[in-house]
Amino acid sequence: MNGRSKVYVEGSRADVRVPFVEVALSGGEPAVRLYDTSGPGSEPEVGLPQLRAHWIAEREGEVDTIEHSGTVLPCRTQLHYAKQGVVTAEMEFVAVREGLAPEFVRSEIAAGRAILPANVNHPETEPMIIGKNFLTKINANIGTSAVSDSIAAEVEKLTWAVKWGADTVMDLSTGKHIHETREHIMRNSPVPIGTVPLYQALEKVNGDPVKLTWEVYRDTIIEQAEQGVDYMTVHAGVLLRYVPLAADRVTGIVSRGGSIMAAWCLAHHQENFLYTHFRELCEIFAEYDIAFSLGDGLRPGSIADANDEAQFAELRTLGELTHIAWEYDVQVMVEGPGHVPMHKIKENVDLQQEICGEAPFYTLGPLTTDVAPAYDHITSAIGAAMIGWFGTAMLCYVTPKEHLGLPNRDDVKEGVIAYKIAAHAADLAKDHPQAQAWDDALSKARFEFRWQDQFNLALDPDRAREYHDETLPAEPAKTAHFCSMCGPKFCSMKISQELKEYAAKGMAGKSEEFAASGGRVYLPVVDAAES
Amino acid sequence: MNGRSKVYVEGSRADVRVPFVEVALSGGEPAVRLYDTSGPGSEPEVGLPQLRAHWIAEREGEVDTIEHSGTVLPCRTQLHYAKQGVVTAEMEFVAVREGLAPEFVRSEIAAGRAILPANVNHPETEPMIIGKNFLTKINANIGTSAVSDSIAAEVEKLTWAVKWGADTVMDLSTGKHIHETREHIMRNSPVPIGTVPLYQALEKVNGDPVKLTWEVYRDTIIEQAEQGVDYMTVHAGVLLRYVPLAADRVTGIVSRGGSIMAAWCLAHHQENFLYTHFRELCEIFAEYDIAFSLGDGLRPGSIADANDEAQFAELRTLGELTHIAWEYDVQVMVEGPGHVPMHKIKENVDLQQEICGEAPFYTLGPLTTDVAPAYDHITSAIGAAMIGWFGTAMLCYVTPKEHLGLPNRDDVKEGVIAYKIAAHAADLAKDHPQAQAWDDALSKARFEFRWQDQFNLALDPDRAREYHDETLPAEPAKTAHFCSMCGPKFCSMKISQELKEYAAKGMAGKSEEFAASGGRVYLPVVDAAES
Repeated sequence: MNGRSKVYVEGSRADVRVPFVEVALSGGEPAVRLYDTSGPGSEPEVGLPQLRAHWIAEREGEVDTIEHSGTVLPCRTQLHYAKQGVVTAEMEFVAVREGLAPEFVRSEIAAGRAILPANVNHPETEPMIIGKNFLTKINANIGTSAVSDSIAAEVEKLTWAVKWGADTVMDLSTGKHIHETREHIMRNSPVPIGTVPLYQALEKVNGDPVKLTWEVYRDTIIEQAEQGVDYMTVHAGVLLRYVPLAADRVTGIVSRGGSIMAAWCLAHHQENFLYTHFRELCEIFAEYDIAFSLGDGLRPGSIADANDEAQFAELRTLGELTHIAWEYDVQVMVEGPGHVPMHKIKENVDLQQEICGEAPFYTLGPLTTDVAPAYDHITSAIGAAMIGWFGTAMLCYVTPKEHLGLPNRDDVKEGVIAYKIAAHAADLAKDHPQAQAWDDALSKARFEFRWQDQFNLALDPDRAREYHDETLPAEPAKTAHFCSMCGPKFCSMKISQELKEYAAKGMAGKSEEFAASGGRVYLPVVDAAES
Repeated sequence: MNGRSKVYVEGSRADVRVPFVEVALSGGEPAVRLYDTSGPGSEPEVGLPQLRAHWIAEREGEVDTIEHSGTVLPCRTQLHYAKQGVVTAEMEFVAVREGLAPEFVRSEIAAGRAILPANVNHPETEPMIIGKNFLTKINANIGTSAVSDSIAAEVEKLTWAVKWGADTVMDLSTGKHIHETREHIMRNSPVPIGTVPLYQALEKVNGDPVKLTWEVYRDTIIEQAEQGVDYMTVHAGVLLRYVPLAADRVTGIVSRGGSIMAAWCLAHHQENFLYTHFRELCEIFAEYDIAFSLGDGLRPGSIADANDEAQFAELRTLGELTHIAWEYDVQVMVEGPGHVPMHKIKENVDLQQEICGEAPFYTLGPLTTDVAPAYDHITSAIGAAMIGWFGTAMLCYVTPKEHLGLPNRDDVKEGVIAYKIAAHAADLAKDHPQAQAWDDALSKARFEFRWQDQFNLALDPDRAREYHDETLPAEPAKTAHFCSMCGPKFCSMKISQELKEYAAKGMAGKSEEFAASGGRVYLPVVDAAES
């Protein structure tokens, strides 16, 4: 991408070097720096450099502990350091990345309002933060399934997802080779990786949820913790007594994890073992610094089921679990939405923030209608933008294949782009101090017909260029003061520029001068899809 | 499309036959009827049947008049009839189409809260209504430009746009053959056609806005009125004194019509001739029943310019003009947005509704960020859904080519689908009585693995089917209780169905029975992009 290059900005210590995409502009305009998730680039067989290894090792000399119910436990979490008043190298990295003060980053983590997912066994990550007072983040899901499995294809999807802007990636592999697939993903990921350990645990019991046990689950957690998984979805809020609440829904339970735990609870007529063993999970998570992503096993799978008692009963339990995790200094975010019509979105955020003590909210979409399979990246980008504005910290993408099949590489890109749009729209609506400069730079380039600048500043420079070139491929058209929408005679942008020059001279009595300028009012456009 | 067929529902008179798409469902489910814009189908060289000819002729025997400032003028508008308490055949058609009482339709039109665009010279239209208390409508723009002109291609785009759900189409042709292009479009359009007459008037003075005159413009209006144009965008609110307000904007004036009139005003240092001759326009519009679409020549073309004084000053003038048009019983809607961040959207609707006496609002998008050229159907579907929810009656689509080039056939489809999603999401959020039945039928089909029903109910059955078949092409997969997202062992929908059956029997003491059912908990999904 011509005009775009990667630059590094140093923090107060030399080993904090934060990547940005720098877009050089023409016309004397200052360069624009954009947030960059793409990572340093890797050879899949070698893996990425271990950026954080040194920082983790530094802290290892003085591993902290936390005392709980009389037991002394090791605790390596960013939340723990933040509460002690320590600004870690990771926090400093994030501060540079977000353009905010390190102390602010620390205080948001300490308050539980933000998380910095960073398993000590995943030193390849470039630190990032998830919290409502930071840039809105997006997650991309990848992973094999029984009918579609190729490790190489998944690593390629990972690299592709972070190239287009995924802030975290969840590996939702099911089927065979779960461990190997994850290992390749971990070692090649510059972003935090999330999983749903229940899927692998279920494979270990041959796919029969009734045979699941706490022990099998715990072993799976530890296996994944050792590999470096940064956050894990845990469906500990699907309580036995909530299952019947989903019985009369139009679409029942649509979360895989939720349906698995519901099946287990019913079969044994016992309380969810993830709930009853939650404190043991906290101890393990504290040791590795794994963040909880408290799963919404009862999220609505259709407009009809939105905001019902099943959903909100589970949310109340997630609030209880959030506060327990905090006792162990374990970082927590809380999962939400699914399918929710626009007028019911805000209630979700407000309730979650209240019940969960402002722990970061992490939502799938929501899809704002059920009627458009093959376009659910759009039905859900609408809901995602809104819920981001209302205070959701991270948006889990939906691809065009949602409900229909496993996303391929192209679908991953469509999903990521739709969600980058939603996240940025949310940042604008939240008046995030850094957000609008990007829009302003691009719009100014547009108004001044700096086509190359406009392409280079675009979220997807390749496609913007390609679409422009479809009708006006010649190189001179890149400097032309019009495009094919209206052609040279009708461009409103051009005439508007002339009016601007004219107005600058003052209006009264200037009409002759304007007319005398040659009737040369050369009519141009940009935004004239309409009138 | 298998399972979908066109049916007609009769009104109280036999010649009111309203088309719907009927989707036949399996599993004993009742058929679902969907709103249908596709028209009866036409051979481009012959044109469509004249559905309304008889109704128009009936009224011709008793053409009504309106007296204004001592002059008696012919008036054929639906607003005029509505005010007299007459329910026209067109109103009755609309009532059946929307599932509402004819008297309600009449009263909304009489109050100016809705318009029924229906030029007496466009008898081919199937009547439709634009108003906040009806289904949210969408408009698709087509039209040639100097660098891309083919009449056949534009007629094909028209047919394609209405197939996918465009409620009205604007012919924004510039360049050569404007009259001929429009003639072909009019005769083949089952939906109301809008234009911006200023574009053709400008061609008549060789593209020099300074040479425009009221007389040239008036002749153009009459030419188009005779052809049957149903609504016209008139940029009468761009007053001389507002032009300097746009001088300091990031993107100046982005409306073509707005920039043309601004150029004229400045060159002559005179007031906009569309404003000074507005009453004469009303007289002409009343005679043919053309509706005003009061153009927003000063709409913002970037996030930076949203909701500024230039925009709202013009809106106040549009309010004044709305009330003048009503004096002549001329139907009016008011154009709005452009680029507006989410938190500034609602103010637009609230102000417009207040200032313009609840006349229908008709907005372009708005785009909620400037940074994603090539994806502005998405940046704007977000804003469109929201502004629809807040009370906008019709949403003007934006295609992926916005800002980059002229949309082709594929772009037209992408734009229409994105806007059908936005409009339907708005209807759900407004709790429109007919809206949710569609979502519920599709979600129920999804939950019950009735794949063919799900495809047939989809906004785009072709693509839904295609995406599903990409990974699981075999015919048996259409009845399978899983899809390729998770494969047969992991489908949450399947287990959820089993839980439902189980819960129906009552829970206590049933765990043995459940476990005894064979450990056959056959794990399935649908909505599991995530966890």
